[in-house]
Amino acid sequence: MRVIGIDPGLRNLGWGVIESTGARLRHVANGTCHSEGDDLAERLLSLAHQLRAVIAEHAPQAAAVEHVFVNSDGAGTLKLGQARGIALLIPAEAGLAVGEYMPSTIKKAVVGNGAAAKTQVQHMVKLQLPGARLDSADAADALAVAICHAHHLQSAGHLSAAVARAEAGRARA
Amino acid sequence: MRVIGIDPGLRNLGWGVIESTGARLRHVANGTCHSEGDDLAERLLSLAHQLRAVIAEHAPQAAAVEHVFVNSDGAGTLKLGQARGIALLIPAEAGLAVGEYMPSTIKKAVVGNGAAAKTQVQHMVKLQLPGARLDSADAADALAVAICHAHHLQSAGHLSAAVARAEAGRARA
Repeated sequence: MRVIGIDPGLRNLGWGVIESTGARLRHVANGTCHSEGDDLAERLLSLAHQLRAVIAEHAPQAAAVEHVFVNSDGAGTLKLGQARGIALLIPAEAGLAVGEYMPSTIKKAVVGNGAAAKTQVQHMVKLQLPGARLDSADAADALAVAICHAHHLQSAGHLSAAVARAEAGRARA
Repeated sequence: MRVIGIDPGLRNLGWGVIESTGARLRHVANGTCHSEGDDLAERLLSLAHQLRAVIAEHAPQAAAVEHVFVNSDGAGTLKLGQARGIALLIPAEAGLAVGEYMPSTIKKAVVGNGAAAKTQVQHMVKLQLPGARLDSADAADALAVAICHAHHLQSAGHLSAAVARAEAGRARA
């Protein structure tokens, strides 16, 4: 299954696509969309165009976005929220379900420690996706989200397979 | 000129379309998009679909969105930001320039007082757009944004006409 992770930001929006086959992960591509334009609407439109092109090119089957850590900087939160609206809308428009994960969940999935430092996350992303050249810190974060989502989907798959087996067993009994 | 005003919200997104001819304003339509769906991405997608349909039906030539008052509720600001991202993106996608106005600017344009109460704004919206049945408080706010933008475009038009006259005068001199 092909998974896209997105790390939203108004100036720089990171994205990373991976392929998961069972427990194996493979890097497909990663990059950073830079918003262009004079006003806010134009900048959001430019992000939307670029993200749509990424999804068209790499055809992911699932998407995930990091849950945002909200701080006391209201203006910053608003900006981030606007970019995050685009990061959620564009994959949904392409028919993808969009997962959301807390930063601690992502760190735990990638590093095994929900309080891991950013550098540790980047290090583990590189280890788990051999050959990946990280375009930016935002793209690295996006790949971490994709890895987290791939793990989650795999466990969910195992779980639903186990439930199906149990139900089949009950039906036979 | 046809102007759409948008009052963004994740649950309810108000919109209002007016037509301005010189200083005269006419109500065209107003309404409220209610987001549907289980997760955030679906809700944003549902808002995007509805707003796109409104723009396709009423064919505005300009758009404006209220600048958000950011408060200490970070989670609320983030939600609003996400809806606001959609409110800015969809008209921009339709090729419209999207103006942004502070609440005090809108109140001043509609009521003549930047600190006017919400009920006063609604009252003046109804007075300035005879026959308009307000769909909701959000739709009333959206019509107020549209009125403010129409005034602004008209003054800008007067200004550019005056500049053009002055330049033509200089050219003749």
